[in-house]
Amino acid sequence: MNKKGSGHNLTMLTDFYELTMISSDDINPDQEVVFDLYYRKAPCGGQFAIAAGLEQAIDYLQNLTFTEEDLAYLKQVGDFDDAFLERLRHFTFTCDVYAVPEGTIVFPGEPLMRVQGPWFQAQFVETALLLLLNHQTLIATKSYRITHAAKGDVVLEFGTRRAQGADAALYGTRASYIGGCHGTANVMAGKLFDIPVRGTHSHSWVQRQKTELDAFRLYADKHPDNCILLVDTYDVIHSGIPNAIKVGLELKQKGYTLRGIRIDSGDLAYLSKQARKMLDEAGLTETKIVASSDLDEYLIRDLKAQGAAIDMWGVGTNLITSHDCPSLGGVYKISAIRDQGEWIPKIKVSENPKKITNPGVKKVVRLHDRETNRALVDLIMLEHETIDESKPLEVFDPVDTWKRKVVQNFKVRELLQPVFKKGKLVYDLPSLEQIRDRVKKELQAFSEEQKRLTYPHKYHVDLSEELWHLKQKMIREARSPK
Amino acid sequence: MNKKGSGHNLTMLTDFYELTMISSDDINPDQEVVFDLYYRKAPCGGQFAIAAGLEQAIDYLQNLTFTEEDLAYLKQVGDFDDAFLERLRHFTFTCDVYAVPEGTIVFPGEPLMRVQGPWFQAQFVETALLLLLNHQTLIATKSYRITHAAKGDVVLEFGTRRAQGADAALYGTRASYIGGCHGTANVMAGKLFDIPVRGTHSHSWVQRQKTELDAFRLYADKHPDNCILLVDTYDVIHSGIPNAIKVGLELKQKGYTLRGIRIDSGDLAYLSKQARKMLDEAGLTETKIVASSDLDEYLIRDLKAQGAAIDMWGVGTNLITSHDCPSLGGVYKISAIRDQGEWIPKIKVSENPKKITNPGVKKVVRLHDRETNRALVDLIMLEHETIDESKPLEVFDPVDTWKRKVVQNFKVRELLQPVFKKGKLVYDLPSLEQIRDRVKKELQAFSEEQKRLTYPHKYHVDLSEELWHLKQKMIREARSPK
Repeated sequence: MNKKGSGHNLTMLTDFYELTMISSDDINPDQEVVFDLYYRKAPCGGQFAIAAGLEQAIDYLQNLTFTEEDLAYLKQVGDFDDAFLERLRHFTFTCDVYAVPEGTIVFPGEPLMRVQGPWFQAQFVETALLLLLNHQTLIATKSYRITHAAKGDVVLEFGTRRAQGADAALYGTRASYIGGCHGTANVMAGKLFDIPVRGTHSHSWVQRQKTELDAFRLYADKHPDNCILLVDTYDVIHSGIPNAIKVGLELKQKGYTLRGIRIDSGDLAYLSKQARKMLDEAGLTETKIVASSDLDEYLIRDLKAQGAAIDMWGVGTNLITSHDCPSLGGVYKISAIRDQGEWIPKIKVSENPKKITNPGVKKVVRLHDRETNRALVDLIMLEHETIDESKPLEVFDPVDTWKRKVVQNFKVRELLQPVFKKGKLVYDLPSLEQIRDRVKKELQAFSEEQKRLTYPHKYHVDLSEELWHLKQKMIREARSPK
Repeated sequence: MNKKGSGHNLTMLTDFYELTMISSDDINPDQEVVFDLYYRKAPCGGQFAIAAGLEQAIDYLQNLTFTEEDLAYLKQVGDFDDAFLERLRHFTFTCDVYAVPEGTIVFPGEPLMRVQGPWFQAQFVETALLLLLNHQTLIATKSYRITHAAKGDVVLEFGTRRAQGADAALYGTRASYIGGCHGTANVMAGKLFDIPVRGTHSHSWVQRQKTELDAFRLYADKHPDNCILLVDTYDVIHSGIPNAIKVGLELKQKGYTLRGIRIDSGDLAYLSKQARKMLDEAGLTETKIVASSDLDEYLIRDLKAQGAAIDMWGVGTNLITSHDCPSLGGVYKISAIRDQGEWIPKIKVSENPKKITNPGVKKVVRLHDRETNRALVDLIMLEHETIDESKPLEVFDPVDTWKRKVVQNFKVRELLQPVFKKGKLVYDLPSLEQIRDRVKKELQAFSEEQKRLTYPHKYHVDLSEELWHLKQKMIREARSPK
């Protein structure tokens, strides 16, 4: 693994059916097709997600190579002929890829990515692209929710030990930094992605010494100017805080400030208020209170509402696993095929209306108010369609079509950007800091009501009239008896 | 990555506080200590977990090395002195490690692993050991639950695209195979761990062809002896199954059997029963029905109870993420330190009784009935204690101590096995097949009631009388004002 965590060869990280399929059409394997990658339901009761993982998806596409060992394995397990294996041996990715930049707010149904090119390739890359974008988008979204609840307080990612494997910890930390966290305990992620790392001591540090006070003194002695003491090994109120105060006053005498105390169990509202009082009464008004222990956006919101005296939040399990919603249901659906030069739109119909796909080669636009930059509506539309910014535009809900509104004085922003052209990277990768900035800017375009953690005020994602009519027509055709 | 996925250097995959701590005690860094790794609550409403991940934990410990690049990074971000960095440069793992073999049933509070040796090392390895064992133990347990609900039917792991990163997919698949799954769609996991890989085709395969029938015929033509057709792209009952039957009859004429159909949406009980009827009426009685779509142990249990005609189950998201419980709360707690040759037990006290640790150097035994091999009770006890198998033994609940029972005619089995002695591997790694066999054998020692998915009949994990008294005494001491 190099400095940026790139160079992984994840070629074999694929569902077997991709290989079964691409080995099974030797008549027309290079037919041009379009796949859309999108999700159907926003995580955790919100209404949008923060796109993340594109950098790793690009890395994956750039490192697509079957090794001889891979080919030998495939020869052994599948009924693949030599011509197919030879084709894999020379696999080169030559598709066009469009994607929303990392940090973009995306709503259900909106493609985060569009892959366009020879079917053989575009089909094959499905599994890994989904895995990479699903994971980081999920965690970036969770991180946004948690930092949003913390209203500007410092939030640190503390979840490595509970992550679903090493990559979940690493790339989850990257995504959590994108979503708004300010630092991490994960050293490898800190190193690979240049994320601030933080950490002090555990309970075992305290237990190992004869007394808690000994342990605090030893730690303070080594870190006089950066001392945060964990106060809940034995008894927060009767032992931890009094001992921390003793050490804090000793540091004060030496000209230092006890930087903080950390509470990792018990009722964080009650204990933090008690702690604040005790610290203040002792004159340690500058000492901060750090809280950790099963935190998530809901608990942080409630603790803040109850006046908890917490300055900094360490969030572990619930962030790194997105505990109440540990998957983003991203899918990768074919939407068009090229036949004799023409794009033929394709649809998948389902009993469940939410599972019906949007046909055709499409783009996504967000209409922003010219003056306030407030997002007005998103439209999924066909690639060839244009919008005249100088004229009012009537948009309508694709299900309840009587819900209509006219927007005007808007500017049109296309969300999907070209990333690969014929397999060549044409995209300037932003830095992680630039991605973080994008998130902040994107969020400003939506109201607090639209960003509410649960049951938010609905933001509309509509279809263009042309796409809507195409879709209705194709559903009717697909369901009519043949 | 080599054939077995080993050789990863995960040294830097650690919480920063491990480094802060071990850099902060230069008085007694090599003091011998004991840490226990255990979890507090069984996943998903069950009462036990299936231990997994030891092979990767061993691999981690064997590959512990700080690179020069790592050291340069640490020098830059931490206030570490050169002596400490020099110590890291020559970091060698020389601890003793005891662990339960992969596939062992473990209950809350029972150490899955005990690390004993110089504090500097034993403290440092906390984060990565937790991550590796937490993740695979969680997924192995989920896989056990799902395959248990499927009552012997074939269950395939289909979750790669929804996994939390590449390692979650890879090692999650390994763990799901340990827990009882019969195969996977994940090609890389299949290759690395020699797990059977399976897969046929997706909806896009159908959408791309002019008609569903064309798509089925093309697939059947390529895979006449292994043809499973996905029937829900347009309309299961009116299009998918009738077309599959047409192709099945065509195959029959050529001397082949349509192997199966797959249903990936809709009501799986209703659709599978309809499908079975239609297939049988067409004479395709040997054609199997495969189901996938948001399956988990609860839905499989209910579908089977409702007589769903499903022969094979593809389980994705809910397995690979352990969706309703996506973390195992494993912890790593110091339980003893060596002082002038003596082991001094250590405890962590908490307002929450479940968070109070068991002090001392400990072992875990399971008492099995000599005749039936049924597990009778587990005991956590001090290392030096022995049990006389020839005499009845009174055991008691550590909370409700009036709950007592006498067990007799038992044999004693120690769960923790030596894995490293002074840093040298002394453990023969079993094959994945051997681990799967262990799981099956272990499960036979428990009743169906004890294995119920939710609210199981409680199996008792007690403390030895000596350990119980030690713990009570230490709690009282820790809580008395100092």
